[in-house]
Amino acid sequence: MTDKVLIYSRFPKTMMARFAERFELLDTGGRPAREVFSADALGGIRAVLTAGGTPMGAEAMDLFPKLGAIVCYGTGYDGVDLKAAAARNVAVGHSPGANAASVADIAMTLMLAATRRILVADQYVRSGDWAASKPSPMMRPQAGMPGRRIGVYGMGEIGRKIAARCASFESEIGYFSRSKYDLPYQYFPTLEALADWCSVLMIAVRAGAETQHAVGADILKRLGADGYIVNISRGSVIDEKALVVALTEKTIAGAGLDVYDQEPHAPDALTALPNVVFAPHIGGHTLESHVAMQNCVLANLTAFFEGRPLPYEVK
Amino acid sequence: MTDKVLIYSRFPKTMMARFAERFELLDTGGRPAREVFSADALGGIRAVLTAGGTPMGAEAMDLFPKLGAIVCYGTGYDGVDLKAAAARNVAVGHSPGANAASVADIAMTLMLAATRRILVADQYVRSGDWAASKPSPMMRPQAGMPGRRIGVYGMGEIGRKIAARCASFESEIGYFSRSKYDLPYQYFPTLEALADWCSVLMIAVRAGAETQHAVGADILKRLGADGYIVNISRGSVIDEKALVVALTEKTIAGAGLDVYDQEPHAPDALTALPNVVFAPHIGGHTLESHVAMQNCVLANLTAFFEGRPLPYEVK
Repeated sequence: MTDKVLIYSRFPKTMMARFAERFELLDTGGRPAREVFSADALGGIRAVLTAGGTPMGAEAMDLFPKLGAIVCYGTGYDGVDLKAAAARNVAVGHSPGANAASVADIAMTLMLAATRRILVADQYVRSGDWAASKPSPMMRPQAGMPGRRIGVYGMGEIGRKIAARCASFESEIGYFSRSKYDLPYQYFPTLEALADWCSVLMIAVRAGAETQHAVGADILKRLGADGYIVNISRGSVIDEKALVVALTEKTIAGAGLDVYDQEPHAPDALTALPNVVFAPHIGGHTLESHVAMQNCVLANLTAFFEGRPLPYEVK
Repeated sequence: MTDKVLIYSRFPKTMMARFAERFELLDTGGRPAREVFSADALGGIRAVLTAGGTPMGAEAMDLFPKLGAIVCYGTGYDGVDLKAAAARNVAVGHSPGANAASVADIAMTLMLAATRRILVADQYVRSGDWAASKPSPMMRPQAGMPGRRIGVYGMGEIGRKIAARCASFESEIGYFSRSKYDLPYQYFPTLEALADWCSVLMIAVRAGAETQHAVGADILKRLGADGYIVNISRGSVIDEKALVVALTEKTIAGAGLDVYDQEPHAPDALTALPNVVFAPHIGGHTLESHVAMQNCVLANLTAFFEGRPLPYEVK
């Protein structure tokens, strides 16, 4: 008998094909599991594959009385109620580090695209304005990378990769995280102090109650009129309304965003702004990181069905 | 009597203001010098400030019978006929390295923007297609940076800075240049061998007769269907027609371009392509690099008028 895995979030079919070689998949396609499958079918489910950001609380877990493992695709697991899982003796797994380089790279892409105004630049050439020698106030020289102060909020695997990349651009690196590490970057004891110091704030912190709206009006004000925000973590870390105000009133210079409060929705007030570069939560999406994350999922599920501890368990 | 400097290319007025504090400027605004100033005025000119890419041959030099120095703003001096200058005992100066970081950074920006499809990504979010869950074949996962083979053509100051930045992205670096250096990157003895090996070719070579159309149909073919071209050097290094064909027929995957054969004109056949990211020759344009290049210009001109050798002379 093949082991059954319920697919709780919406994933691309091409990706599911690899898991289907090993497991019998009950794919909800992102719809409520009860609408798609009978209570009987759900009753037999022991393992669920989900996306880390998809909400999964006690009630959802109780749909599966035999549940033993929740496996998250990706690094994040902020959607999963860890207490509820522990209370039900359900192991939670994820894919730590598997997409760290890919996410760090989108952070760099968004930062460089925003600070060097590549969207404006591309449009200036394509429109023919450059050829017509039309002056463009948007194409005035901007501050570059050498000597720029980059603040990294969160110093996990992604934060470290962002810092290492920024260092190669001859920038200064500072960071704030709960712990101070033995790293060659300046540590700031508070997010406020980091925001006062830096001109680009890279959000690479884990999402959760502790970091919910941590970047609000106050932090944005401290960043200043030359400041940029780059978020590749989760939309919940930023107070999105305060961000729209800061970008509209130009109390900060710009932003690069891969994540939003209510995905896949980016508010109209945000997408109307010219000083933002948008990506549709593609940070972790490269060919290699997908393979690496799939490997973590397969290792977690295989171990679970063989009665072993998950090799990539959330601690 | 204030020293007179003829401004032979078109430069922003804000930039000229700094030079005007020290010299009397005769600004052509990029028009033919003869149309703007009398033969008499030109006859007294001993120093000319130009852009490295602006053509300046023997005939142009002969407009200024007392010419002693041609000072180029920026690293390049490919527009200047060095033989003609030497024959007239005219010193040629430039701004070596002053904009290297800035240019290397635009190379990274263009590479990341092209390979991670940031223009498509931004449009996907802004248009509402993401929110509407419209599938986008353009948003399929792409190859990332770790393990990617980056080929650097030219290993001067800009090439080295590009290589150092790429290394921090966990990519493999190879290079081709006239000389092999003591550097931790794989050396290829020919551009052909480099193109066969790499999936991104970064053009960071000096422009000139030797490198004219060095990247043509053959090199593009060797780069392959997954290959990208990034050019931050001079448009003349690429056979632009061959590039349009390769991008249109998708025998290469994409390109990031800051320079063009006939600036400020980028051909319509090129600007119509979705798989290219364009910038209007802004590589060297950051606040710091402008100050650094201005410092080189001032040092060159001051030395010249004081009868000393140019500190940043083209060798």
